[in-house]
Amino acid sequence: MTTIAVFGHKKPDTDAIVSAIVMTYWLNQQGIDAKSYRLDDINQETKFLMELAKVRLPELLTHLEPDQPAALVDHNESQQSIANLADAHICYLVDHHKLGDLTTAEPAYIRFEPVGSTSTILYQMLKERNLLISQQMATLMAGAIISDTLNLTGPTTTDSDKQALQAVIHLAGIHDINSFANQLFDAKSNISDLTDDALVTTDYKQFIFSNKKWAIASIETVKPDVVLSRIEGIQQASELIRQRDGLDYMLVIIVDILKQQSWAVGSNDAQNEIIEQAFNTRLNDKLLDLGNLVSRKKQFVPTLEAFYAQ
Amino acid sequence: MTTIAVFGHKKPDTDAIVSAIVMTYWLNQQGIDAKSYRLDDINQETKFLMELAKVRLPELLTHLEPDQPAALVDHNESQQSIANLADAHICYLVDHHKLGDLTTAEPAYIRFEPVGSTSTILYQMLKERNLLISQQMATLMAGAIISDTLNLTGPTTTDSDKQALQAVIHLAGIHDINSFANQLFDAKSNISDLTDDALVTTDYKQFIFSNKKWAIASIETVKPDVVLSRIEGIQQASELIRQRDGLDYMLVIIVDILKQQSWAVGSNDAQNEIIEQAFNTRLNDKLLDLGNLVSRKKQFVPTLEAFYAQ
Repeated sequence: MTTIAVFGHKKPDTDAIVSAIVMTYWLNQQGIDAKSYRLDDINQETKFLMELAKVRLPELLTHLEPDQPAALVDHNESQQSIANLADAHICYLVDHHKLGDLTTAEPAYIRFEPVGSTSTILYQMLKERNLLISQQMATLMAGAIISDTLNLTGPTTTDSDKQALQAVIHLAGIHDINSFANQLFDAKSNISDLTDDALVTTDYKQFIFSNKKWAIASIETVKPDVVLSRIEGIQQASELIRQRDGLDYMLVIIVDILKQQSWAVGSNDAQNEIIEQAFNTRLNDKLLDLGNLVSRKKQFVPTLEAFYAQ
Repeated sequence: MTTIAVFGHKKPDTDAIVSAIVMTYWLNQQGIDAKSYRLDDINQETKFLMELAKVRLPELLTHLEPDQPAALVDHNESQQSIANLADAHICYLVDHHKLGDLTTAEPAYIRFEPVGSTSTILYQMLKERNLLISQQMATLMAGAIISDTLNLTGPTTTDSDKQALQAVIHLAGIHDINSFANQLFDAKSNISDLTDDALVTTDYKQFIFSNKKWAIASIETVKPDVVLSRIEGIQQASELIRQRDGLDYMLVIIVDILKQQSWAVGSNDAQNEIIEQAFNTRLNDKLLDLGNLVSRKKQFVPTLEAFYAQ
């Protein structure tokens, strides 16, 4: 049997990388041949977590073979996946985002739950099959759940995330969750080595709203001042990315993880007006104050979809 | 909170009706307000099973309110669902077919497994939540698994179906599976009261293959001679349905459940040629011998998709 390629979305965050590793483990433990991959470089937070858990980084995957069996985790929109996804035979799909444009040629194993992280679903899948969860796997899942739910404070957090995090924290032997979370957030907020382009594209996803091609970049930080001091560079990089990727609109959202508030930076006047209307806010010195909204999946994307549906 | 409407596909078979009832039970047992519905009349097999289990038939649903929360079971292609599905807010989706054209506006709870019946997945979901399975629910699930897997002999049958059926047969207090299965199949094969139109549309699903609008009707029977004796009426009804529903092609497949073999009836010469090529068979006195193929989901649809993909 051909090995199943397991991978998360492009521009991977911690949950995308961890989900690929844990999904591979779930398959392997059931005797199914599978290997985890990443579609891009990882961010500083993920790097910190992988080193802490002493788990090897998945190999880079740039192209699928024709009819390659594939397991997609933490994404299901084709524009967020590998370029030649259409060549793949998708046999597994585990995600916590809305159901997008993907179809499968044959019945597949699919698990979506409206929870804060894909790792929460994978934790449940491991439990259902009574599979052993090693300290390494538990450490990775703890980091991914904390990362995606902003340590259980974000609006996507559910009871399932709380239960899963409590369980994996215990299995990982982590005694102080908040200290562990702060280490992750500090690593994520360490942007001094990043170019403006890298800062904007580290967590970057494309969407189609009513035929308009959008990208929404999210910069989550515990040091918003550091990010805001680079606002002109961010805006310039954003406009270059917009042109390079053939986008109509490119939005950068800066999220203060600790205070749970955010600001958006639009790429031009037309877009700023859309954001003003959709989010009932006003442009103020390049920034659009988005108040206490922080979740792309649960807040920014649905608000824009509702705006375009009018 | 608004009640969630739970329903299976149009032209419901036993698994579509049972899945809606069991999914509703799964939701209700967790304190979630939900009610099961059917989109059309039920077939003789389902009627027999509902009476045996002493479960009331779900009400007919013809239209969804705007933003109606909905749980879809045993289907996920919009053309197999309620007409104004686009108005619904889909929050649950449990199925064992390929992933089709559906999207959701927000993250939803989705469970697909490549198993023989949706009831098998629902059995696992009940077990995962440690929910009580009553004798009534077990009887319904036993009937649905037997119906969809042709009593575990069909090509879609998996170990999960076998395990689920064994468990629910026990819970239902059914001592002789084969006798129970034969009662279901006899009920399904009792077509004397059906008009040719009803015979053809009892289990009828539409598909799009490369922009061509197809319908594939399946007549599963333990008495193929009775069905074959009505072949001219079937062909006439089929052509009328093709015109009425604006289809390019209408295919009727007659499946001998016991001998595990099938014959197809095409609606015109062009379609007969497609079937001859796709299935490597020859037209013989109105019938296309499909050998031991019996599954629309696993065999007929994938073969036609592969043919059109050439």
